[in-house]
Amino acid sequence: MKYRSRIQKIKQKMENDDIDYIFLSPGFDMIYFSGVDVEVHEREFFLVIPKEEEPFFFLNDLMEEEIREKTDIDKFEAWSDDENPQDVLTNLVNSEASKILVEDKMPAIFTQKLREIFKEAEFGLSSQLTTEIRINKTEEEVEMLQESAEIADKVIKEIRANKEKVVGKTENELAEFIESKMKEFGGEKPSFNTIAASGSNGSKPHYEHGNRTIEKGDSIVLDFGCYKNHYPSDQTRTIVLPGEPSEKFKEVHEIVKQAQQKAFEKVEPGVRAKEVDKAARKLIENKGYGEKFIHRTGHGVGLDLHEPPFINQENERELERGMVFSIEPGIYIENEFAVRIEDLVVVTENGAKRLNKTERSWK
Amino acid sequence: MKYRSRIQKIKQKMENDDIDYIFLSPGFDMIYFSGVDVEVHEREFFLVIPKEEEPFFFLNDLMEEEIREKTDIDKFEAWSDDENPQDVLTNLVNSEASKILVEDKMPAIFTQKLREIFKEAEFGLSSQLTTEIRINKTEEEVEMLQESAEIADKVIKEIRANKEKVVGKTENELAEFIESKMKEFGGEKPSFNTIAASGSNGSKPHYEHGNRTIEKGDSIVLDFGCYKNHYPSDQTRTIVLPGEPSEKFKEVHEIVKQAQQKAFEKVEPGVRAKEVDKAARKLIENKGYGEKFIHRTGHGVGLDLHEPPFINQENERELERGMVFSIEPGIYIENEFAVRIEDLVVVTENGAKRLNKTERSWK
Repeated sequence: MKYRSRIQKIKQKMENDDIDYIFLSPGFDMIYFSGVDVEVHEREFFLVIPKEEEPFFFLNDLMEEEIREKTDIDKFEAWSDDENPQDVLTNLVNSEASKILVEDKMPAIFTQKLREIFKEAEFGLSSQLTTEIRINKTEEEVEMLQESAEIADKVIKEIRANKEKVVGKTENELAEFIESKMKEFGGEKPSFNTIAASGSNGSKPHYEHGNRTIEKGDSIVLDFGCYKNHYPSDQTRTIVLPGEPSEKFKEVHEIVKQAQQKAFEKVEPGVRAKEVDKAARKLIENKGYGEKFIHRTGHGVGLDLHEPPFINQENERELERGMVFSIEPGIYIENEFAVRIEDLVVVTENGAKRLNKTERSWK
Repeated sequence: MKYRSRIQKIKQKMENDDIDYIFLSPGFDMIYFSGVDVEVHEREFFLVIPKEEEPFFFLNDLMEEEIREKTDIDKFEAWSDDENPQDVLTNLVNSEASKILVEDKMPAIFTQKLREIFKEAEFGLSSQLTTEIRINKTEEEVEMLQESAEIADKVIKEIRANKEKVVGKTENELAEFIESKMKEFGGEKPSFNTIAASGSNGSKPHYEHGNRTIEKGDSIVLDFGCYKNHYPSDQTRTIVLPGEPSEKFKEVHEIVKQAQQKAFEKVEPGVRAKEVDKAARKLIENKGYGEKFIHRTGHGVGLDLHEPPFINQENERELERGMVFSIEPGIYIENEFAVRIEDLVVVTENGAKRLNKTERSWK
């Protein structure tokens, strides 16, 4: 039923925008609207959503059984190996349709064939309609994101409880430890390349982890996450191993923590995304570190790890209940250290709730 | 120099077909024409080949340094994060161009943008020109394929030398052994999912490996390969563990072996791909097993594991010196066993040479 109701939503939008067909190739939109998560690269495999008729899967007949088990969409149009999929599809659609949307990542080899079928149609991208549906998470989606966040939180606690043991390990070893713990706690796979950047490595953009041995008193930027039921976690803590960090580090950490809190407090329905960014940015600027906050404050998170709403200086989008995004201000002091603190938050009726719940301190 | 000479070849074809620009996104064509192997999904990253000017990389400026190290293409046009890549590209090309080719797998989000830049152009797929260049392997490519084949051959020898030890292992354990040995011998990663299908499992289409324990006298279909320097190996042996197989198995194995040899002997420049298929198929049909040979005889192998020329019943393509493909007839006796024997071969001046050199017997 879940997928049928999502399909209803998009058909409403198709009606409004006068879109005749949407063709989804495997990817996040297909997972969202059908539950089907497959890797099919070489052969025609589409979820077809016509404006007026029932949605259907268009696929090789050898795959039908496997796919039926994964979805409540029950119309299937299969082509067999001795047929030309393009001919089969032509007979299933109205080739005089005038507006078609295709999945943003659909390979050119398939869009070219669709263009041959719908010779007069204007083509666009499915995100044009799906983004606005996927941007508001359902309760079930928030629960999935929460579950995934809890796995990552547990790993942070595990690291804090074993601080002494981390001393003397390399960043690579720590990253391996993090990934094995996520797995142990139920994560399916990392949602992005784990970052365990110690000391001055933290201040390098795109640094993940390396051979540097982590020493007493080092600060470490720990940014990692995992997938669970298709939904990712993503949070950051900057912690210090046994020993006392410099006064400068403590000052910077406190500023980032306050900025993160300020942005969090700014969140509520009706507030613009850019105002959340501004809340964090202004605080950091006022403390004299504006130049050292070199990225946006956050990004939406759903099936896709980076999706709308983006929390940056330009985004005028008003926040709505059910949106989920990261708040992750940071200050990067070149050749010295960096501090970034990140939580995922969900917009509630009159504010926001954090999905990540571990302490934000450096201890 | 290697890449420049490949670019010269494609520019010649662009001239002949009057193609104004080719846009390659990351993938095999980009590797072939520039050596650059990257995974970039969200941002504009193209190798642009204009008909008349020098080819250039179009990419985010933060990636330029990394990419320059990998290629002898020396023109780079970079866009920075505060620019709109589409606007930057518009200023670099002649938007009145009339024929554009894009990489077959280029995501729709990019082809849509290119279509906005080249409003009047007719679009096609890069494979239209690149297939015919890539189908004839250079000597260096054949060497790479040979190197990769030798790694797989070593693993086959290793299994034969340890036949006694395989008894009692599960197929999963054997597959793990195969993959660890490929790595040990210099393979970078498996080129496809390893198949270790024992007994009747061999006769199931698409079966890879499972929990079945391999017993004395079992036959096993072993089909695996690895990448080395971007080039894959792919060969199959069907062997029997200590003990004597059934007379039926021995008969079938002999037929497949003869069919494989017949097809091999058929190969020479000027022969059509379908004639090679026919040589194997006819022998199997004459022995009464025609219905049990359920797939094509082979596929081309290059950067892509499955690429032209396809050795099937329809392909009229004449073979040429330097083409590399698999010859892999098989007989599948449902619920009993299967036999498949596969070698990669390269077409030579007046015949063919096998890249795989281990015995083809079941011993």
